[in-house]
This record gives sequence, C-alpha cells and structure tokens, in this order.
Amino acid sequence: MQFSSQLLENAVNEFAKLPGIGKKTALRLVLHLLKQDTGEVSHFSEVISKMRTEIKFCQRCFNVSDGDICSICSNSLRKQDMICVVENIRDVIAIESTQQYSGTYHVLNGIISPLDGIGPDQLNIESLVARVQKEKTQEIIFALNPNIQGDTTIYYIQKKLQPFNVRVTTIARGIAFGGELEYADEMTLGRSLQNRLPVESYVSNR
Amino acid sequence: MQFSSQLLENAVNEFAKLPGIGKKTALRLVLHLLKQDTGEVSHFSEVISKMRTEIKFCQRCFNVSDGDICSICSNSLRKQDMICVVENIRDVIAIESTQQYSGTYHVLNGIISPLDGIGPDQLNIESLVARVQKEKTQEIIFALNPNIQGDTTIYYIQKKLQPFNVRVTTIARGIAFGGELEYADEMTLGRSLQNRLPVESYVSNR
Repeated sequence: MQFSSQLLENAVNEFAKLPGIGKKTALRLVLHLLKQDTGEVSHFSEVISKMRTEIKFCQRCFNVSDGDICSICSNSLRKQDMICVVENIRDVIAIESTQQYSGTYHVLNGIISPLDGIGPDQLNIESLVARVQKEKTQEIIFALNPNIQGDTTIYYIQKKLQPFNVRVTTIARGIAFGGELEYADEMTLGRSLQNRLPVESYVSNR
Repeated sequence: MQFSSQLLENAVNEFAKLPGIGKKTALRLVLHLLKQDTGEVSHFSEVISKMRTEIKFCQRCFNVSDGDICSICSNSLRKQDMICVVENIRDVIAIESTQQYSGTYHVLNGIISPLDGIGPDQLNIESLVARVQKEKTQEIIFALNPNIQGDTTIYYIQKKLQPFNVRVTTIARGIAFGGELEYADEMTLGRSLQNRLPVESYVSNR
C-alpha cells in the first residue's frame, strides 16, 4: 500500500500490529479516526495508554483490577471460600456474564501444555495451593477448556490439593444448549452419556 | 459483559466505538495490548493521537499530507497537468498501489448524492474547476465508483469543465480480471460490449 502521508502510514502500521487486523482494516479504522474530533481521538489514545499503565492484577486471584485486590475478592456478598479456577481473564468475563456464579476466581494465566513449553511452574498454581491452605477453601471448581491440556491441568492441581479437605469439581461437559446430537463429536457425546443427569434435577435447573 | 476493572472496561468501550469492531473483538484487542510492554502501548497511542492532530490536507488536491502540499503534488516527476478525480483518500491509496498512474489527484471528499443530501457545493468541485483554469490542465481522469452517484458526479463536473480545453476521460468499466461473464450484471456486460477494444490494443496493454 502506498501512502502520501507518513503520519497516516505510521498509524495504519500500528493498528495492523493488532491481532486479526490487516492493512485494509487498519486503514479503515484510521480513516474513521481521522473523521472524528481531535478531542475524541486524544481521549481514545489516553484511555488505552492509561489502561496499560494503571491496570493491576489482583494479588489474591490474579484477575485484572483497578487496585491491589479486585472488586470480586473484596466483595463480601460473594462466597469467599469458593474458588473457580480459570485459564485467563477472558474466562472470568465469560463466567461473570452468566450471572450464575457467586464465588471468587483464581486465574492460572495459562494452562499446562508441554508441547508449548508451559509447565506448572509458569502458572499461578503454587499460589492457589497456598490460598486453599490459608483460607480453608470449601470448594474448587475447575472451569478449564475441555481438551487434553485442560484435563492435564485439572489432574495436576487436583493431586496437589489432596492433602486438604476441599471439594473439587469441574463444570459440566456435554452437548451445548442449541447444539445437535448428530454433529457432536464422539468424545463429547460419550462423556455426556456417562455423566447423564436425573431428569428431575435437569428440569429444576432450567 | 461484566468487567472487574473500570480501566479495562473503558478501553474496551473505546475500541468498540470503531467501525466493524464489536465488544468481543474489542476485548481481544485490549487483552492483546495488556500483554505488550508499557512502552509499546504508549507508542501506539501516541502515534494515533499525533496522526489526528498533525495530519493536514493538501491545499491543492485535498489528499492527506504531512505538509501544506502533499508529496504527490510536490513531486516534479509526476505529470502535474493530469488530474485523477477520486471520491476519497482510500481511492488515492488504491490507485497509487497499482503503480500505473503518474499524474496528480483531486479528492472530491464525497460524491453527489441527493438521497443522502450531498450536493455539489459540499464537495471540492469549485476548487477543481479553478485548478483546471489556473493550471491549464491537459487531462482529467474520473476514477469514481461505477454507480448512479458516480455517473451523476461525472456528468455535473464535465459540464462545468466544458469552457476549458481539457481532455476528459473515465477509467474503463467492464468485466473485472478473473471475473466470469456468467455472473456479471447486465449493465456491466452491456457497457463492456459497447466499449469493446481492438484486440491489438488489449494485447499490447497486457
């Protein structure tokens, strides 16, 4: 692409560094910003820059936070003795959006994946075990993606938690709501047969 | 979407204001920036902000420019007596990318469209006529989108240019390279039959 302005080209190149944004999309975004008021664009860049410099990670659960302790960990209405273990911040946001969970979280910041060179030491696992020991946690719920890495991580952490008197569960896996049996993979369909539910509990949960 | 950080939420909201970017994509972009170095993110926001405040529009052709006159208008290697009339900056970039054009441009900044309330007075048409008169332009090439608005605009400007001794042309319209006759609309196919080319000129242009 040929630009007649270096300022424009630099801006397009910066946007094109973002994931999933190619040169053409970057140009579209920059030309959109060019049409906005100067004030609005400087507000945009200030908010982004401020987000990066001022955001913190909760010292207890490693979720993003505006302070040292996040708003979930400091909320006394939430069950502080229940911990949902997730891979990353995006999963916290997904679960919070269901409005069905009232405990706390623990963000592992990744998942055990020997192929990618990610071992347990690079994840927030030791801090989880220390937390369970110190806080006398009642229940750990694993909400990890249902794949080999997720299962390996659950297995590893669950062994570490055995000395403690804590209930360990995982979110249900099965046919997604609105999904079709016909197109479900064998693993999912097989597991959802094994973990079948009594119809009374299914109906009462609706 | 539920965020546990106001800083994160503000940044996501700013990205989601951009065209074609929804909340989920915005979150993905923000979480990507969160993983980058502070320096890189502040560079990103500086470049965007600088682009908006410092960019200028060429006083001669209304293309984006780093100075008062753009790099195309001030380039003596380009045919200064040939003007390609385009709708917007994006079209300049598209034509420049072909590397087949060595004249100058005139950016109308829109197209005559009574339905959208855009008349000739809102476009850079007077300045084009003044430019042709003053600079003794040899050729005007219309590179407007082939639709009713484009044709109306060509018709309007061409009438305005009649007093001057200037050659007025338009880019060829026809079946796109790689296109299939079968799927071409009647208008395009009809016009490309009317404007058929001698095979010698077609072959020599390849």
